[in-house]
Amino acid sequence: MNSLNRVFEYELPTEICFGLKSLQKLPEKVEKYNGSRIFVISDPGVKDAGILEKVTDQLSNIPHEEFWDIEREPDVKTIRKIQDKINDFNADLVIGVGGGSAQDAAKAVAIMATNEGDITEYAGLDKVPNAGLPTICIPTTAGTGSEATIWTVMSDKENNKKFGVGGKLIAPTVALCDPELTVSLPASITASTGVDALTHALESFVNKATQPISEALSRESMRLISKSLRQAVHQGDNIEARYDMLLGSTIAATAFNPTRLGLAHALCMPLGGKFKVPHGTANAILLPQVMKYNLAGNAERYKEIAEIFGENTENLPLHEAAELSVKAIRKLNKDVGIPTGLSEFGVTENDLDYIAEGAIGSDNVDVNPKKPIIEDLKQIVRNSL
Amino acid sequence: MNSLNRVFEYELPTEICFGLKSLQKLPEKVEKYNGSRIFVISDPGVKDAGILEKVTDQLSNIPHEEFWDIEREPDVKTIRKIQDKINDFNADLVIGVGGGSAQDAAKAVAIMATNEGDITEYAGLDKVPNAGLPTICIPTTAGTGSEATIWTVMSDKENNKKFGVGGKLIAPTVALCDPELTVSLPASITASTGVDALTHALESFVNKATQPISEALSRESMRLISKSLRQAVHQGDNIEARYDMLLGSTIAATAFNPTRLGLAHALCMPLGGKFKVPHGTANAILLPQVMKYNLAGNAERYKEIAEIFGENTENLPLHEAAELSVKAIRKLNKDVGIPTGLSEFGVTENDLDYIAEGAIGSDNVDVNPKKPIIEDLKQIVRNSL
Repeated sequence: MNSLNRVFEYELPTEICFGLKSLQKLPEKVEKYNGSRIFVISDPGVKDAGILEKVTDQLSNIPHEEFWDIEREPDVKTIRKIQDKINDFNADLVIGVGGGSAQDAAKAVAIMATNEGDITEYAGLDKVPNAGLPTICIPTTAGTGSEATIWTVMSDKENNKKFGVGGKLIAPTVALCDPELTVSLPASITASTGVDALTHALESFVNKATQPISEALSRESMRLISKSLRQAVHQGDNIEARYDMLLGSTIAATAFNPTRLGLAHALCMPLGGKFKVPHGTANAILLPQVMKYNLAGNAERYKEIAEIFGENTENLPLHEAAELSVKAIRKLNKDVGIPTGLSEFGVTENDLDYIAEGAIGSDNVDVNPKKPIIEDLKQIVRNSL
Repeated sequence: MNSLNRVFEYELPTEICFGLKSLQKLPEKVEKYNGSRIFVISDPGVKDAGILEKVTDQLSNIPHEEFWDIEREPDVKTIRKIQDKINDFNADLVIGVGGGSAQDAAKAVAIMATNEGDITEYAGLDKVPNAGLPTICIPTTAGTGSEATIWTVMSDKENNKKFGVGGKLIAPTVALCDPELTVSLPASITASTGVDALTHALESFVNKATQPISEALSRESMRLISKSLRQAVHQGDNIEARYDMLLGSTIAATAFNPTRLGLAHALCMPLGGKFKVPHGTANAILLPQVMKYNLAGNAERYKEIAEIFGENTENLPLHEAAELSVKAIRKLNKDVGIPTGLSEFGVTENDLDYIAEGAIGSDNVDVNPKKPIIEDLKQIVRNSL
């Protein structure tokens, strides 16, 4: 019981509504939060897949406006542009439909509708003073968990960096999770976002800030992902696998909100900012190396992860049992077709300093089971090239 | 995946703060919710054990008033009396310190400070229109879970009945859970409240309304209680066992909020109302008989319960594996000294109609894994006499 000697806090500021056809509950949720002028944010892929239309069909009787041109890792300039549109439209409720980018943008603009200044001024945890507009997030990928997290992450491309704005007030009001909306997701994005969700559950589960409620939720998330990610990737119309994956992703978010994550997520920030490695892919590539580095920091937990992923740990010494977790995740990465290394994205030995220095200051490093020095981070990235 | 074909909702309206010495966080929580005039509700046992003083010591600089004379299963007359005191004192934050009774009273008066009429008018779910005063609940037993539930239950002694007022607005603002405050609890109350907590997790886990987030939390709760209840009863100063039990109890509450419970809790209401059987004891006595009746309704889940309680189900047919869960709970009841039957409280064969009729209309019956008729309820109580 590693939490016996410290006080932990657990909160879930988002109302979760989950299930097949739960999209039909959208009008009810809009009414509950007094939405009378709705601003909907999405991305081109979601629009092309016809999902945005499914959402706006539910709003037929309510004045609404759309912005569906959110880019990956949205830039602060885009956030500012949407802010202006929201003000012009006089919206009183924001909906984000998509992966992390559209949802994070919705969370950001909802907050900026009621707070002064520029979003960049609020980087960090609990910097935002006023509650934002009510926000309904509708995920179309099973990975980010943004529908239930207290974070919104965006890029500041002018300055080549990514940053997050966090806190209870950033959490969506409602997470409306309909697994049917994830069925059309291509295999490669299903894979990378799925391993991202797994990374959320796993990094929270082993880190220094974890706590019993998060642990129970992380276990359930890993169990679901272990059971269903391969099937969701290779048989995309398998609705049970899609259900499990979205559930695993949303539950992982409820687990890591109070715990933060670990080195994979710390390293993702510079990799996403400068090298544009997609968030899920970066996590998936880094995760086995991060685990290998961390094993001795929490071997019992890594053993349990190995068991959740079906490895037989019977009669093995603890460190060998723990090592099987790395083997299990490597196998999963391979089975779902994760790119084998960061060099596919143009990252080279020459970039290691930049990446390690961009990661070392992250709060996600502080909670990691082992405290790394710059050289450790460089080695993890080097092994992931 | 029994939830594939329905939409489920999960919310946790209470902020949980848990750990040894977490009581020291009370001033911080009071400040966070702008408490400047505090009304503290407790019971004589908690006062005698010196726990009330530990709480008010934390409030030394803030004007506060106490009412520490809450009776078991508080009557609506007591609630009305405290309401007047709270109005006279002009309180802006309510603290409940104790078992279910003190906490439920605190939740009831917090609501009545901002809503018209009489508490009896709000019996049922979601009947209360206005949010109440901020409420901080501090449990001194590991059983009720009231610190994190959306229910307050009280007696209407004039009419020989118990009733509940439920909904998101009834949930405490903060659950402040310090296991040290449960150390002085006598063995017999540790036992009955402990099995009450277990009944929360277990009835939620097997019922028709259960859902994945609740399931994960119920599993964790049962694991903790299975591991630690015997030790908490027989070695009351074992702080790890007390920690696990309070955690198991609070987590069970977060599990059953959206699912309701089952037949044991339905039958508890008339047993508590007319026969004054303490809530935890009634649940503990009824539970094995309720499980036996329910087994076929969700055998897989009962098998899993048997396994959580350490029974070896290997190579057994499902129904035999499920039956082992009843054996495990009987053994637990015996080991912790639960009274063997309701006849110890003066309940007789002649009371069966009254009890069954008082239970059959409960919402807790609707979600039970099997739908009982009056005769089924009578038989469960008859077997529990």
